[in-house]
Amino acid sequence: MPLDWVYDKAKVLDLDNLKSAKVRQNDLTKPQGSLGQLEITALRMAAMQGTDRPAIDRVWISVFAADHGITAQGVSAFPQIVTQQMLQNFIDGGAAISVLSNALKTSLEVVDVGVVNELQRPSIISDRAAAGTADFSQKPAMSESQLSHAMGAGRRAVERARIQRSQLFIGGEMGIGNTTSATAIACALLDLPARDIVGPGTGLNQQGVAHKAAIIDQALARHGYTSNSPLQSLEYYGGFEIAALCGAYLHCAQTGLPVLVDGFISSVAALVAIQINPGVSGWLFYAHQSAEPGHKIVLDALNVKPLLSLDMHLGEGSGAAVALPLLQMACELHSKMATFDEAGVSNE
Amino acid sequence: MPLDWVYDKAKVLDLDNLKSAKVRQNDLTKPQGSLGQLEITALRMAAMQGTDRPAIDRVWISVFAADHGITAQGVSAFPQIVTQQMLQNFIDGGAAISVLSNALKTSLEVVDVGVVNELQRPSIISDRAAAGTADFSQKPAMSESQLSHAMGAGRRAVERARIQRSQLFIGGEMGIGNTTSATAIACALLDLPARDIVGPGTGLNQQGVAHKAAIIDQALARHGYTSNSPLQSLEYYGGFEIAALCGAYLHCAQTGLPVLVDGFISSVAALVAIQINPGVSGWLFYAHQSAEPGHKIVLDALNVKPLLSLDMHLGEGSGAAVALPLLQMACELHSKMATFDEAGVSNE
Repeated sequence: MPLDWVYDKAKVLDLDNLKSAKVRQNDLTKPQGSLGQLEITALRMAAMQGTDRPAIDRVWISVFAADHGITAQGVSAFPQIVTQQMLQNFIDGGAAISVLSNALKTSLEVVDVGVVNELQRPSIISDRAAAGTADFSQKPAMSESQLSHAMGAGRRAVERARIQRSQLFIGGEMGIGNTTSATAIACALLDLPARDIVGPGTGLNQQGVAHKAAIIDQALARHGYTSNSPLQSLEYYGGFEIAALCGAYLHCAQTGLPVLVDGFISSVAALVAIQINPGVSGWLFYAHQSAEPGHKIVLDALNVKPLLSLDMHLGEGSGAAVALPLLQMACELHSKMATFDEAGVSNE
Repeated sequence: MPLDWVYDKAKVLDLDNLKSAKVRQNDLTKPQGSLGQLEITALRMAAMQGTDRPAIDRVWISVFAADHGITAQGVSAFPQIVTQQMLQNFIDGGAAISVLSNALKTSLEVVDVGVVNELQRPSIISDRAAAGTADFSQKPAMSESQLSHAMGAGRRAVERARIQRSQLFIGGEMGIGNTTSATAIACALLDLPARDIVGPGTGLNQQGVAHKAAIIDQALARHGYTSNSPLQSLEYYGGFEIAALCGAYLHCAQTGLPVLVDGFISSVAALVAIQINPGVSGWLFYAHQSAEPGHKIVLDALNVKPLLSLDMHLGEGSGAAVALPLLQMACELHSKMATFDEAGVSNE
């Protein structure tokens, strides 16, 4: 089976270095615990990197873009053409993730996994599963071979990140209509009706949100809940960029590359990945809680608390980029602060 | 009166640039509001800097250190000598704020406003009000002239920041016992008993916290509540570093230098400054909500929501430093993203 690789085990975390990092942390010149969530973050990174002095210098961002047949049902505040237009904006440097990537000096690549109208540019990686998904209110969003291709696109992005010796992977997404797909997947996996998770996405009004919920419920009734078949949730509800994120997270965990998960869409991709392969969870950091109301439900289901909660809801990987300096400073503090002994500070 | 300057009006915010920045923000290639708190942050910075393209390149950090006579009552988990030892750690680069300042490429100065045992080093600025405050459970923490000196030390730090054309001021503090002072001030200004605000500081156990509350209540009974006299709250309860922070915030607002407020101690200093001079509030950003339980009460009294909530409780300005990249990225995004027109992206 072409998707057999998704079940390959996640790399084992380095518990010896976790232990020695913990010893070091307790000896740094500060009250124990006084750096809060940053302390846990540094320790987890130590266990992932296999060192008691973790660092994050080389960061990789892949933004996966694709279109969604479900937009035919009027579920988004923006027209489908915006997906393609934003691809140009990404490579021109005008999009939020482009500005953040420049400011933070990260790598940034844009991967077309299935935009309806292909934009051929040398700086866009073309790894297309198809020209957009099918309208999932009518039939499955994608075929099994398209799913395999899209998840493979995520895996291939991680391979590129690894060649550059990246120390952290951030996945972004762009796809008009993709909160509808992500909401449907979350409903299918968590056994919840659409009204429990649905939200405004890029800016639907109340009526638009109700319509979106009705379309999702209709699709759930057609394809069914998939809590025991996470791969099928992607096949039924899409989209290619969510499948790519899911594939990327799986391969990151399998090869030992830490991940910083962005917002609602990305967290749903993480939920799918963890339901496929529970060991993935040890390799994921969560950047922020989005303003999209379903995000909190997904984060609670994942039992995680992200670093930020700034009412952002843009996608593209922007929330993860904004949280990146927190991860970096957590490592800096852990690795470079003086111990009580080194500094000659009393600790009693 | 030597403290007359504290009543000088805060600089007026530039509402014309606030308006043009708002127009620009609504035209950037993202759904309106999708950058959440970062959008408000950028707009406020535009109004402070008087430009529709705000930026934060030059950041100044002053850490004010002083000792507290109240430590004689056993209110801290660490011995008083740690204040002096940490001064050495600050200038040696081993403290959290030193590591963060290096990573973030900010200026960092250490100001002794009244450590018990003076540590004379060329790189420590000596601007001492006295060798520590008095034990405020027995008498006022400082005299009026000491208060004037300590607040002036904050004002002088801001002058140094301005000479370097700093675009943002961060104040940090170090002083064993200073959560006790800050808690007493907050109680005095907000008309609350100690039990409503008191917390573990650097790490007291439950018994220690109860003892700290009793000492504070005793002092409140002696000196009285001071909700109509914020300057007196500093005089009664200390300390020199809190007075210096308060003076710095006042002078920042008066001269138009934006401030990023750190945690509990700093927020109490901000509360005093705003009660003295309400126009100060327009010039303050709040970095984080500390794990110190009283911080939430003070932030609620100030009616503000900080950027971060990571359970940090270290002080030194560390929470503000950790939040700094968020302010910088808010400005970067606002000033450098493409508009819908520039990028040729549909906006409907």
